Amino acid sequence: MDQEEDRNAIYQEALALHEEHHGKLEIRSRVPLETRRDLSRAYTPGVAEVCRAIQKDRDMAYRYTLKRNSVAIITDGTAVLGLGNIGGYAAIPVMEGKAILFKKFAGIDAFPICFDGPQSDFVDQVRNIAPVFGGINLEDIAAPRCFEVEEGLQDLGIPVMHDDQHGTAITVLAALLNACRATKKQFEDLHIVVCGAGAAGYAITRLLRCIGYSPDVCRSVREIVVCDTQGIIHRARKGLYSNKYKFILADETNRSGRTGSLSDAMEGADVFIGVSGPGVVNEEMIRLMNDEPIVFAMANPVPEIMPDAARRAGAAVVGTGRSDYPNQINNALAFPGVFRGALDAFATRISDEMKVAAAHAIADYVPHPHREHILPTILDRDVTRAIARAVKEAAIQSGYARDL
Amino acid sequence: MDQEEDRNAIYQEALALHEEHHGKLEIRSRVPLETRRDLSRAYTPGVAEVCRAIQKDRDMAYRYTLKRNSVAIITDGTAVLGLGNIGGYAAIPVMEGKAILFKKFAGIDAFPICFDGPQSDFVDQVRNIAPVFGGINLEDIAAPRCFEVEEGLQDLGIPVMHDDQHGTAITVLAALLNACRATKKQFEDLHIVVCGAGAAGYAITRLLRCIGYSPDVCRSVREIVVCDTQGIIHRARKGLYSNKYKFILADETNRSGRTGSLSDAMEGADVFIGVSGPGVVNEEMIRLMNDEPIVFAMANPVPEIMPDAARRAGAAVVGTGRSDYPNQINNALAFPGVFRGALDAFATRISDEMKVAAAHAIADYVPHPHREHILPTILDRDVTRAIARAVKEAAIQSGYARDL
Repeated sequence: MDQEEDRNAIYQEALALHEEHHGKLEIRSRVPLETRRDLSRAYTPGVAEVCRAIQKDRDMAYRYTLKRNSVAIITDGTAVLGLGNIGGYAAIPVMEGKAILFKKFAGIDAFPICFDGPQSDFVDQVRNIAPVFGGINLEDIAAPRCFEVEEGLQDLGIPVMHDDQHGTAITVLAALLNACRATKKQFEDLHIVVCGAGAAGYAITRLLRCIGYSPDVCRSVREIVVCDTQGIIHRARKGLYSNKYKFILADETNRSGRTGSLSDAMEGADVFIGVSGPGVVNEEMIRLMNDEPIVFAMANPVPEIMPDAARRAGAAVVGTGRSDYPNQINNALAFPGVFRGALDAFATRISDEMKVAAAHAIADYVPHPHREHILPTILDRDVTRAIARAVKEAAIQSGYARDL
Repeated sequence: MDQEEDRNAIYQEALALHEEHHGKLEIRSRVPLETRRDLSRAYTPGVAEVCRAIQKDRDMAYRYTLKRNSVAIITDGTAVLGLGNIGGYAAIPVMEGKAILFKKFAGIDAFPICFDGPQSDFVDQVRNIAPVFGGINLEDIAAPRCFEVEEGLQDLGIPVMHDDQHGTAITVLAALLNACRATKKQFEDLHIVVCGAGAAGYAITRLLRCIGYSPDVCRSVREIVVCDTQGIIHRARKGLYSNKYKFILADETNRSGRTGSLSDAMEGADVFIGVSGPGVVNEEMIRLMNDEPIVFAMANPVPEIMPDAARRAGAAVVGTGRSDYPNQINNALAFPGVFRGALDAFATRISDEMKVAAAHAIADYVPHPHREHILPTILDRDVTRAIARAVKEAAIQSGYARDL
């Protein structure tokens, strides 16, 4: 069976699975409800006493309710998978999928909330439904709105993370740390090209730059050049001021002042990180890179360059978003453990320190990384546990943990 | 152990139960997630095909997602139990309690959404989070806002019901039908006093009036007089126009034009329905009623008049909201089956016909009603099934069912 046939088989199996179960989530009781006494404890009149305790001290919601372990998966359906702006109804299966990953890998009770299309007061709307949730996973929201929404919610007092940004960035940082180990490259010496300046590209770029914390925890790379569909982002580029976030990228990257196309960016680069579209990179462009380059071509399902082509052109390490090639770089590796650690710490936010800690926990989980194996498998629940421990510790260290 | 000691014991057990489990809900996967193939079917890449199917036809969400069986339990925390406006956080335990009742008695996956206090654009906010839900149970929202919110959501295309209104009204109608059977009173002859013009009082009054459908299904009573804290609601009462809903009550009830206090209303009445506050009725007032009156004193936990006092004063049938007396009138008897039937019919709303059908299903479930036993126990799942069948049938008959 070739890849396309297999893809079609998976599509049919997916439809059958979703139809059989009518979705993937169910809600269950954690407490017995057999007798009148059970009812009196779990519902009226006993529940009134629990309400009064929370009324006196709102933080008691963490002791007595689902809030302690619940995460909202919130989307507006504007950038779902590679499907684009398909709306809130068509987004439901993806959000349910995330919810079961949360449960399976991190024991988190996550529930999908799907807005149908762009919301004018999205920040307020999310804020208003937050009481029952211990954390918020923003999902599949188009750039640049995703940046504004995530920023606007950082003072909510619970961890809020846009997974397409930071889940991806954490996994890419982990992959890059181990790709360096596998190729004996020094992280600080890397010249990196990031192709794609949407949610993932922006967050990857900013996380790779996260200098100034502890040099043990994360060092900055030498240079990052970011490209979008118009080519290299540089400070003098026309129209830059119309998008605050591209302006920030221009300000924080490309210190050498390169201009031109993606090809111009690739010259002399050590690392290519693609979060853009299918086939935008060819073998010629890989050959413009330094010796033994690292190529992460994560466009899905069709990468920026196919792994065999990249390798033919000299790539030393190749990663994609796909499970049918070695080195799958999948944010599902990061988000369950990141939220588990943040919930365990009662953290008020997910700080850069926590993200970096998560990336190192993922990277360190692979004892002897080599070119065909830089990341753990996402089916290993112990990875999640290692990430959660590291994130919780970083929350405590960075002062965002609470004692509840 | 006297009642107060027992109440305190239940409070302590409730706190312990909620602390042990950290709330009462959990979210689980309905599908396996053990292998890469499982992941490919439930999440990427397979899920994309499911998204595309829903993108083409939004109703496919009922086939492929949790929407088919999910209900949002939505509150703003402004009128929780007898506790008043305690806010969205303190309301969580009650909403979780409703969710587990939904699951236990109707197999419905219900999830609590708690807004924290009054919302200026509540209708829009609820509308915006509706895509993942197959129904909406509004809960513990203060009157008169609850009426506006419920009305404003009736065009959403899914069943939306404020349980404090209609769950209560359905159960009261069922109780009244069987109290008539037990006392050989004719429903059409009843003179009824409703004490309390909040959410429950308003809905009870309107449901008892629901004439004009089929005379087999529901007949109207002879007279209803509604009282609030200012006494009898009548058309000439001052200040009536400041509250649209009290104006509607005045317009639709009290055809005899009574004025005065609750005592004045009770004179010659056959039925007292209390959804007000503790102790507002005394034995003297019961003695003003017709022979063998029916007294439903549902203020909770302390009724309008204690059952023994009502009986001493001549009440033939006494019901309360409490489980420690005979004839508990509890909306938990109605709402699971009503939503089960509405979801099974893919109903676009919960019509009066469906509510009346639910009441008859509950009443008819008791084969030989007598004065000490007019309603089934809420712990009997077969009641829910009977209600669901009747509601689904009524949805089909009244044209609100869909074929999906």
